[in-house]
Amino acid sequence: MKKFINQPDQVVREALAGLAAAHPALRVDVERQIVVRGDAPVAGKVGLVSGGGSGHEPMHGGFVGPGMLDAACAGEVFTSPVPDQILAATQAVDGGAGVVHIVKNYTGDVLNFQMAAELAADESIEVRTVLVDDDVAVRDSTWTAGRRGTGATVIVEKIAGALAAEGASLDAVAAMGAAVNEASASFAVALAPCTTPAAGKPGFELADDEMEVGVGIHGEPGRRREKIRPAREIVAMALDAIHAAKPIAADDRLIVLVNGLGGTPLIELYLLFNEVATALGDGGRIARSLVGNYVTSLDMVGMSVTVTRATDEMLRLWDAPVTTPGLRWS
Amino acid sequence: MKKFINQPDQVVREALAGLAAAHPALRVDVERQIVVRGDAPVAGKVGLVSGGGSGHEPMHGGFVGPGMLDAACAGEVFTSPVPDQILAATQAVDGGAGVVHIVKNYTGDVLNFQMAAELAADESIEVRTVLVDDDVAVRDSTWTAGRRGTGATVIVEKIAGALAAEGASLDAVAAMGAAVNEASASFAVALAPCTTPAAGKPGFELADDEMEVGVGIHGEPGRRREKIRPAREIVAMALDAIHAAKPIAADDRLIVLVNGLGGTPLIELYLLFNEVATALGDGGRIARSLVGNYVTSLDMVGMSVTVTRATDEMLRLWDAPVTTPGLRWS
Repeated sequence: MKKFINQPDQVVREALAGLAAAHPALRVDVERQIVVRGDAPVAGKVGLVSGGGSGHEPMHGGFVGPGMLDAACAGEVFTSPVPDQILAATQAVDGGAGVVHIVKNYTGDVLNFQMAAELAADESIEVRTVLVDDDVAVRDSTWTAGRRGTGATVIVEKIAGALAAEGASLDAVAAMGAAVNEASASFAVALAPCTTPAAGKPGFELADDEMEVGVGIHGEPGRRREKIRPAREIVAMALDAIHAAKPIAADDRLIVLVNGLGGTPLIELYLLFNEVATALGDGGRIARSLVGNYVTSLDMVGMSVTVTRATDEMLRLWDAPVTTPGLRWS
Repeated sequence: MKKFINQPDQVVREALAGLAAAHPALRVDVERQIVVRGDAPVAGKVGLVSGGGSGHEPMHGGFVGPGMLDAACAGEVFTSPVPDQILAATQAVDGGAGVVHIVKNYTGDVLNFQMAAELAADESIEVRTVLVDDDVAVRDSTWTAGRRGTGATVIVEKIAGALAAEGASLDAVAAMGAAVNEASASFAVALAPCTTPAAGKPGFELADDEMEVGVGIHGEPGRRREKIRPAREIVAMALDAIHAAKPIAADDRLIVLVNGLGGTPLIELYLLFNEVATALGDGGRIARSLVGNYVTSLDMVGMSVTVTRATDEMLRLWDAPVTTPGLRWS
């Protein structure tokens, strides 16, 4: 297996120790696999907690910090975090104004976050849950009832995080998170599978001239397999699927994420963004954009496009300062 | 070939068009392959120009902006930019205080930047050149006389860029760039080769259980090939080589870059940084750090470690605000 690791079962903990060493502003509980912003809980502020299986870095631990998440729970690779862990994160960030859980729609994540929310309620912490299910490729996939949560998670976490930083109420933050998810659609294509440290071999097989269209971020099957096509046609296919699920109007203002799945070089992501911009760009519809590796699938060679039809308020919150390892601006 | 491209010979231009679309604060001349900060030239400020072959993104185009480079010249993939192109970039950023060329030590780059500097002198633009040659793995490699320029380029560009932003003189900015290079050492290891769009097949071959120790950022051979070892031993090997070339003292204050070569997932880069921090970290020697894909080699699976023995002034300049696609903080 070609990986920079020591032992497969220590990868998540050792990477979290590295995150802690690189980012002293974060408080990292390596044993419990919880990343918390250093000044949590912030009194009177709604806390934001997300989490999920590891292997999608920088999501979620890399999005902890002022203006975005208050805490993230890292499960083992491609495995949900557990309820006790989520409860501990929820307690750590509860500043008295309640906590929002941002949960990608995978069955294990949904169940464990729900159980943690019930445990938190027993401790008198009010929790609201924002479910992210932006992937328009398939319904009811390997680990999902309904649509999968993927690239839009970054946009939900950024915008809801900015609103929470302004002191908005629990209901307002949760409603904004849900609205961003509702306004978002994603579609992914893989050219080569990822390999988990535990398995040591690729999660699926693709012929040398094939791509997986509509792939999930754990390598779950997409809509079909077909011959590799030029970037322009791949982008057109992704945008068609997005448009079919959530139509893009002529006067929409969009946040567009062209996201790498881990093994795709940045030069190709910018080339893909050029195709997206050419296809969508007339009339300045792309109001904001992000190009890079944000929601990955270990070393998968692939990319996803996420389009959010943003309100003025969403754009304002997108522009608000953020200080995390993975997203940072002012 | 498993790449998100349209035509191999259009990759660089289409990626530059994507960079332009994603970052409206940059002025991108797609035809001439020049990226310039939007407000250039800044009157009275020393201009900073870098460049080199494409395929190392975000370097260099992604480092153009306030606090870092004023312009970058993109060559074709793994091919030097040409003198006329470098001259045009130099003219575009000349604010009357002279221009610093930051040049990675590859024979083609050195010759073409030198020719451009002579052409600029004919136009009465004073140019100083900072040569970056931080890679301690080998001397006199495939395209280099002397040591190769790799990861330290980011650190040189950030720190020299910050000093130029403060209004320092041409000689002071060039001297600082040279001092950062002198204080820096890098070492890289690859687990799998990269594939250029033009060649369409891997640049070298590695057996399933082998790694290339001391690899260059174009896949140039390193010191040796050996069986893959645990991350801890790979880091120890890299730090030993760095220490042997540029000894690290007990009271040094270091800037450490753990850099991905393009195909390595972030979870592994943080795991590697944990090993570096464990090996070097006692006594708070690691004053600043950066973990991610900054100086890449297309889709190469690999990583490099760069260590800069920083002065207080270098640390202060490292912390100064920067606003570029690839590095951004305030």
